[in-house]
This record gives sequence, C-alpha cells and structure tokens, in this order.
Amino acid sequence: MLYYKSATSGPIMRIAILGTGDVGSRLGSKLVVMGNEVRMGSRTAKNAKGAAWAKAAGAKASAGTFAEAAKFGEVVFNCTLGAVSLEALKQADADNLAGKVLVDVANPLDFSKGMPPTLTVCNTDSLGEQIQRAFPDAKVVKTLNTMGNVVMVNPGLVPGNHDVFLCGNDGLAKAKVVEILHGFGWKSPIDLGDITAARGMEMLVPIWLRLYGKFQSPNFNFKIAR
Amino acid sequence: MLYYKSATSGPIMRIAILGTGDVGSRLGSKLVVMGNEVRMGSRTAKNAKGAAWAKAAGAKASAGTFAEAAKFGEVVFNCTLGAVSLEALKQADADNLAGKVLVDVANPLDFSKGMPPTLTVCNTDSLGEQIQRAFPDAKVVKTLNTMGNVVMVNPGLVPGNHDVFLCGNDGLAKAKVVEILHGFGWKSPIDLGDITAARGMEMLVPIWLRLYGKFQSPNFNFKIAR
Repeated sequence: MLYYKSATSGPIMRIAILGTGDVGSRLGSKLVVMGNEVRMGSRTAKNAKGAAWAKAAGAKASAGTFAEAAKFGEVVFNCTLGAVSLEALKQADADNLAGKVLVDVANPLDFSKGMPPTLTVCNTDSLGEQIQRAFPDAKVVKTLNTMGNVVMVNPGLVPGNHDVFLCGNDGLAKAKVVEILHGFGWKSPIDLGDITAARGMEMLVPIWLRLYGKFQSPNFNFKIAR
Repeated sequence: MLYYKSATSGPIMRIAILGTGDVGSRLGSKLVVMGNEVRMGSRTAKNAKGAAWAKAAGAKASAGTFAEAAKFGEVVFNCTLGAVSLEALKQADADNLAGKVLVDVANPLDFSKGMPPTLTVCNTDSLGEQIQRAFPDAKVVKTLNTMGNVVMVNPGLVPGNHDVFLCGNDGLAKAKVVEILHGFGWKSPIDLGDITAARGMEMLVPIWLRLYGKFQSPNFNFKIAR
C-alpha cells in the first residue's frame, strides 16, 4: 500500500493561526487535515478556546500565545477581528513575523455603530495596507476575506465556479498562498496585484452582508463572469 | 403581417436621460430601440453631444436641458458623473422629479486625487441615499452601476449567467425598473432591499476598476454563485 500526499492538499508546513474565532478554527482544522502542523495563538497562553480547538484537532495541533504561534509558523494567518488585528499582531511581535508570509483574512468591521457593521477603514486605505505598513518585514497577502468561513475551506459547497481573490506586494508569498488555496479546493485564484487591492476586496463586504441577509445563508460567493 | 412588441423589450414610455456621456448615450439609444421616447438632458439647451446623440438615435430621440428632459420623462435616469449628480438633479428641478422613478446609475467617483479614483462618499452613506434625501418625492432606484456601459444594455456580451443588482425604498418603482432591466436582457435582477444597499453596490466599484485594469477589458461582470 502506498501512502501519498493528495495532489490538492497543498504544501506541508508549520502554520500559525492568530485568533480563536470561527474563521481561525475553520482554517486551522482544515490545515491540520491537510497534514500541516498548526499552532493557534490567542491573547493569553491558557485561552480556553485555543486549548479546546487544539485538543479536538489532533496531534498536529497546538495552542499558545500570539507570539508563540507566530514564532512557530512559517506562514502566519491573521484571523483576528479586523478592528483589533494591528494590536494582536503587535503582541505576535514584529520579529516573529519578519520575512514570513502573513495571510490576512480579516475584515475591518466596526460593530460599534450598530448593525449592519461599517468598515473602520476603506476607500483610501485598507486593513491589509495598514498591516503591511505596520510590519514592513512581513509579506502580507490578503485573501479569503470575501466569503463565509465554511466556503473558505470548502468552495465545493457553493455550486458552479466562483472566485477567491488575493493581493500582496511579494510574488513568491502570493505563490505560496495560491498553493494553500489550491489545497482548500480553489482552482484559479484571481491575483489583483499589490496590497492596495485590499481596498476593493474589503469593500466587497457590505454587499456580502446584504446578500447574507437576503439569502439567510452564507453559502454563496462572488464569481467574476467573463 | 402582425406588428408586435417583443416580449423582452420592456414597457413603452417617455424616458429622460440626464447626462450626455457614454452611459447616457448607451442607455438612451437602447431605450429608443426598445420603442421608448427618450429625451437627453444636459446643462445647456444647445449641448452639442446631446444634439448629436438625438440626431443619430432617430425620431423618438430628443435633447434639451436637464429640466426639459426631467419634465418630459415618466422615468428619469441619472447618468451624470456621480460627483456632480446632486447639482445636475437640482438643475433638473425637484418638481420635475416628484412622484417619478429616478433610476440612479451613477458612481460617486473622485478623480481629483489621481488614479485609481476613490469614492466621494461610502461606508456610512452613498450617492443613492444622498439623492433620495435631497429629492424625497422622487422614487430613487439604484441599479446598473456595477458594470461597464456596454454590458448594461447587452448582458449577453459576457458569457454565462451574471447579475445586476437594484435597491430602493419603493416596491412599485423597483418593479418598473425590473421591467426595463428585463428589456435590456437581464433575467433575474437581484433586489437588495432599501436604498441603503446603494452603499454596498457603489463599494463594488473599486474592485471592478482593479479587475478592469487586470483584464484590460470592461466585458466582465459580477455573478453571485449560490
């Protein structure tokens, strides 16, 4: 009997997931299933959600602080709430992010003014750009922020072809993220260019929220027909 | 021989097109072809582009001032540049817009800060809402702002299924706009609810512009896969 890595499972590596919410748990679990070692980071070392996730996700999963996770990962996923991402990444420590691929899947949602949420930043700037400016030695790649977390790791849940976008300043970092996206099941990620495209990607969120309210389900996604 | 109106040509009516640019010309010409009487309005009565359009578009086409066009139309299309739409609509005169369907296809693009343009309003407000507030007796319906003007009146140009959105506070006004959209060839317009959905619709423009730059063609469109 031959054991082999599935052609679509993506590269095996050490990955940090910053954030213990639905997005972090979903991505972390999928990355473990794909064979990667994943450490989930949170504000405190003894975070109950991080520990519970690690226990459930199996031997290749672990949990720790933002800094412990970031230090561990070759690739770091920012899955924290957008409004606190910069603070969480500071706790992760710039030294632990330097030279690494920092995959930003967060949206800068502002729930403080009631529903629906607005964006804390948009139009002339974006969270992706703010993160790249604050951590110039990290290779920020924005992606996966334009869909629900279940669809992120299971695009087949939505019928037909549909799209995931990515952007960032570093071509090799984007190539590594595309490999991971292939592992999630995304066939042809659309590269929108440098990190300033994060503006348009994050500005998709208001109509996504409106459609979510209309459909009463997050199982839909944007497709670019052409 | 029987003469009949095509089932997909939409209702026959008097329509005002405010604005003499590519969007106004394209929509106006299509609406004439569909059998409607169309008057194109501009800042001055003797606008050369308006006159040239009317001459080319045939017997059912005419041109005049914003106010003359708005007074003429049962349905009024705002095809002016978003940054000057409120001023143009003031010239059209609130009395000429009262009780009418005001179809807002404009985008609030700000070219003053260089390329790519940003939005003059977004996130917590929109051009569609600004227009509805400024002209409370008009029935504002936002639509068609999320694609290039050729695709607006010829969705078949883009392969496969793809979508047009609309929103507004008045259900009957939206029903009338849906009839017109059917006449343009749109099978299933997506009603996003009240006019506040104009925020999400206008915030699609930055990623549209990015994709336009990538594809070097405006012949693409958003589809909501589900």
